[in-house]
Amino acid sequence: MEIKKKTCFVLFYMCCFLACVAKGLDKPRITLNAEDNIFRNYSLGGNHSRVELLQGPSDTTLYVGGDGKLFLIDFQKRNHSEIPLTYNVTLMHRYPNTQYLYVCGTHGEPVCCNVSMKLTNSSEPLPAQGIAPFGVDEQAPSLFIEDELYTTASYEKSGSKIGIRRWSDGSMGSIWSNQENTQDLRYVALAWSGPKENKLQDKVYAFMWEKNPDPSREAELWVPLVTQICKVDRGGPKSCLQKSWTSHLRARLSCGIPDRKLYFSKLVDVTILYAERWNEGRAYALFSNGWNMSAVCIYTLGDIDRVFTTSSFREHPGQVPQPRPGMCVSDSTKLPRDVLKMMMGPLEMQEWVKPVGDRPLIISRHQYTRIEVDSVMAVDGTQYSVLFLSLEDGRIHKVLEVMGQFFIIAELNVFQRKTVIQNMLLQNSTKKLYVSNGVEVLEVDLHACKKYGTQCVDCVQARDPYCGWDAISQTCTAASSGTIQDVQHGDFRRCEDLPVSSALHSLPFVTEVPLQAAHFLNCPMRSGHAEYNWYYNDDSQGCVSTDKGCLLLIETMGPDHDGKYECKASEGGYERTVALAQLQTAGRAAGLPPPLAGAVCLLSCFTFFL
Amino acid sequence: MEIKKKTCFVLFYMCCFLACVAKGLDKPRITLNAEDNIFRNYSLGGNHSRVELLQGPSDTTLYVGGDGKLFLIDFQKRNHSEIPLTYNVTLMHRYPNTQYLYVCGTHGEPVCCNVSMKLTNSSEPLPAQGIAPFGVDEQAPSLFIEDELYTTASYEKSGSKIGIRRWSDGSMGSIWSNQENTQDLRYVALAWSGPKENKLQDKVYAFMWEKNPDPSREAELWVPLVTQICKVDRGGPKSCLQKSWTSHLRARLSCGIPDRKLYFSKLVDVTILYAERWNEGRAYALFSNGWNMSAVCIYTLGDIDRVFTTSSFREHPGQVPQPRPGMCVSDSTKLPRDVLKMMMGPLEMQEWVKPVGDRPLIISRHQYTRIEVDSVMAVDGTQYSVLFLSLEDGRIHKVLEVMGQFFIIAELNVFQRKTVIQNMLLQNSTKKLYVSNGVEVLEVDLHACKKYGTQCVDCVQARDPYCGWDAISQTCTAASSGTIQDVQHGDFRRCEDLPVSSALHSLPFVTEVPLQAAHFLNCPMRSGHAEYNWYYNDDSQGCVSTDKGCLLLIETMGPDHDGKYECKASEGGYERTVALAQLQTAGRAAGLPPPLAGAVCLLSCFTFFL
Repeated sequence: MEIKKKTCFVLFYMCCFLACVAKGLDKPRITLNAEDNIFRNYSLGGNHSRVELLQGPSDTTLYVGGDGKLFLIDFQKRNHSEIPLTYNVTLMHRYPNTQYLYVCGTHGEPVCCNVSMKLTNSSEPLPAQGIAPFGVDEQAPSLFIEDELYTTASYEKSGSKIGIRRWSDGSMGSIWSNQENTQDLRYVALAWSGPKENKLQDKVYAFMWEKNPDPSREAELWVPLVTQICKVDRGGPKSCLQKSWTSHLRARLSCGIPDRKLYFSKLVDVTILYAERWNEGRAYALFSNGWNMSAVCIYTLGDIDRVFTTSSFREHPGQVPQPRPGMCVSDSTKLPRDVLKMMMGPLEMQEWVKPVGDRPLIISRHQYTRIEVDSVMAVDGTQYSVLFLSLEDGRIHKVLEVMGQFFIIAELNVFQRKTVIQNMLLQNSTKKLYVSNGVEVLEVDLHACKKYGTQCVDCVQARDPYCGWDAISQTCTAASSGTIQDVQHGDFRRCEDLPVSSALHSLPFVTEVPLQAAHFLNCPMRSGHAEYNWYYNDDSQGCVSTDKGCLLLIETMGPDHDGKYECKASEGGYERTVALAQLQTAGRAAGLPPPLAGAVCLLSCFTFFL
Repeated sequence: MEIKKKTCFVLFYMCCFLACVAKGLDKPRITLNAEDNIFRNYSLGGNHSRVELLQGPSDTTLYVGGDGKLFLIDFQKRNHSEIPLTYNVTLMHRYPNTQYLYVCGTHGEPVCCNVSMKLTNSSEPLPAQGIAPFGVDEQAPSLFIEDELYTTASYEKSGSKIGIRRWSDGSMGSIWSNQENTQDLRYVALAWSGPKENKLQDKVYAFMWEKNPDPSREAELWVPLVTQICKVDRGGPKSCLQKSWTSHLRARLSCGIPDRKLYFSKLVDVTILYAERWNEGRAYALFSNGWNMSAVCIYTLGDIDRVFTTSSFREHPGQVPQPRPGMCVSDSTKLPRDVLKMMMGPLEMQEWVKPVGDRPLIISRHQYTRIEVDSVMAVDGTQYSVLFLSLEDGRIHKVLEVMGQFFIIAELNVFQRKTVIQNMLLQNSTKKLYVSNGVEVLEVDLHACKKYGTQCVDCVQARDPYCGWDAISQTCTAASSGTIQDVQHGDFRRCEDLPVSSALHSLPFVTEVPLQAAHFLNCPMRSGHAEYNWYYNDDSQGCVSTDKGCLLLIETMGPDHDGKYECKASEGGYERTVALAQLQTAGRAAGLPPPLAGAVCLLSCFTFFL
């Protein structure tokens, strides 16, 4: 039985998931707040119902399309220009080799216009049915590639007639899709397969979900799908599929633990990490399930391509005609009749596209809403993926993908209060993440490493591939060839040969506490993965975990509380003293220095514990 | 479409579930620990791999069957007698109208013997294949009713050949089941339908799970089932089903939110609450799912009976023979051939048994392991059900079922440390709950009401149907006709006409705190459903929630911290002052009393806030 064969592995995997949850390894290691100064924010002067983001003409600039306005924000100079629009922006692309942007949106009716890159002038808006959506709430991804625009907006105000359309002035012409007259599906992302060795086989992939047509009790509510179309598709002949796709195939995406019948079927967001070799490109797909849990599954473009080019066709058990349906041909108007006939219905592959490692990279009780991914080269030359996952309350998790596991490097509380993140844009070239909630836009510097701490160990245990320890300047800084880093394991021993601060174990001043008074000692908790403990004369006292730190509460001061207190943090086999204090019941001892303000000494020095 | 029709209700229900989780209403209101003295414990002098519990001959006594021993514990006198056995106990029943217990178990081979009620002597153990299991780990429920023993233990050492067997010396004779040669099913509980008006139709119901034979991708891993057999079934004639059930039907149990395709399919435990009218009897079934979540669904015996007596038969679409298969007849050996033929396979109903209210009573992220239920009459004569749900770490949740909702009255931390609860027994007549982890047995007094607090409001807001406020003795005590109680809403206004303690708002002594010293004020948090806040000169300061209480931390004392502090708890529209303090920077003021120990005054008085 299939169930029995894989039980061990699956149990192990689920145990890992549950153990991770129990051990708190699904918690962020570090929490960074607005006060930590790693964000620059810019107000949009109002609350925009939708926000589109596009890299500006220079590294520090960003286009932001909102309600009736297009901004060009310069985060360095802290200024912006803006141009009014008669509609709300839903789509922005830059024309290659021109000084214009293509900006579309809706004022109840979809429209587009050309706007100069410096926002000095705009053309008259023209109707754009099928390019931009009618409603500002409709997510409709688009792709602008090699002078061709691919769009997925619904063609009717009711939100129906949804399909992929190509708009082109070139020889291929426009294609108006085998659109489906339904509201029960939505496109989530578009991706380009290429450039391939054989340009003829370049494809556009679309990630989407639809309501499961299967009404049976146990069928999932949603079906996540990837579809393909050929870039060279020019539609069928006059008699059949004229100006419609003749290469449109669909395949289901699998994300879950099939052996335990645990699935994630609602596709939430997808982002593509292109690679030098096209087939190593990866689609990072964010899913949710009915329990408000999240999962991230990764699909390689090569695996997707393999399913489309080799799987049998669902509900077509017979002979497959030639050329194989969905194969790209130089002139699709000349396809044989039997191939065209098969392409008329939605043609689905029998095989599902499975994720890398046959299982989700992440299963989490967090409710993630968007995903962005960056590829970062570590000091040793290894490429790591770093995921940015927004939460429903405005926080962002920065997550390292390492050896098929995940590690939450940091939680970014970019906004001061709970809010809904409308959009995120990762700028790989400048290592900046842009985030907007419709009210303001933030620029997050992914190279801001100082916040991990002032010691080599802090920097190495952070496992942030963007960051390394510079032994000369003694700071945690942007990773470069000379810096110390261990993304793979975060092993503190990488730091061992370095000099240790000399302030080690210096005793703090004595604090006098009145007899029978209440007093507390606070131990700051930087790492969500460390264990903190207060020691009184070397006896562990535990501590009370709070948002502020780990507290040792002395309810009633007395001579039996006199003495030395030490707070130690232990993480990954490394123990350090984080805080020291000496308490003395007031008026009992002589020859001691007077009480001192803030006498809990927060050490900037560390002890090695091997 | 079915999905659309019910969306509103289902979304509302899921929102409720998620809102409850968010609001913390799925948290226990009160936590009771071993120190609260509501438990009496008794050590078993060793660690027993399995523990069976049976009410003893008097109200304060309990039989405990363990590894090679049978105990009779008297919790009042705090003593016990014991008798050694050559096996580990797995089953205990009391013979009606005799002085003997029927005690079975296993020493590798299943055996049974008779033991005198006072544990003074035991008969020789006799082989008992099919009565007791071979392995001590095998849960195999049994039912002893009207001189007949129904058992479900596997008939072979391998754990296979599982079925329901009847052992009887009476006219009905023993029945040796249409047992199934599999390890992929287990019985969870047996129940009696009766006594019915028509004794002929008395049935025994069995609750069980089996591995889903459907291998398809989306089919659930497990199938929860209820089966029936007629008490008067004496098997078929010699030629067909001789000494086997001729009335064995099965029906699937539904537990989940079908409209969102969210199901609980692993049956964990079942307990029956019998009613005066047999068909109002309720089976409380505890389920889990693959995400380690729990659900409780309630099925009435009447609904179960209705499915068996009216539903069509799965995979038997044609004419139903007469008498209807599964109907109890006075002499089953004379059943017509076509009826007997249908009864040879496992005959399953087309219709599923749906839970009361068509949805689970409880959906929880807690991992519950066992369930017991008590029926409690409130002061106003209403019957309420109180559920006792054990957690995987040894805690117990005491849960009120009220108007189709649940309310976690209390969390009982009965054991000092994390442990696995092996068994629970609710004694309805004495209102005691017995719990064992194999090392000790605890008696929990369900009438221990004082711990809710010293005020009428504490008692009424507890919503515990076992407890009421006695205005004369001014205590929260066992509910009786004169006591004040509001199980339905926990509305504090029930207490309004009562005198309020006169200590109201009396100012506490001043505590002097040295300049720049750290100081904290603690506000005890009794209720997990209340909101706590510290106020400084009437300005809310919030507080830091900890296990110890809600803390107000003053990191550096100074004159701007001088003044009056008040901690208020707000719950169900009622606000009370829980703690008061006055702080004064040391050495600044004159004419004030000297600093006093423990100057945070924990009020035993309350303010009404309307």
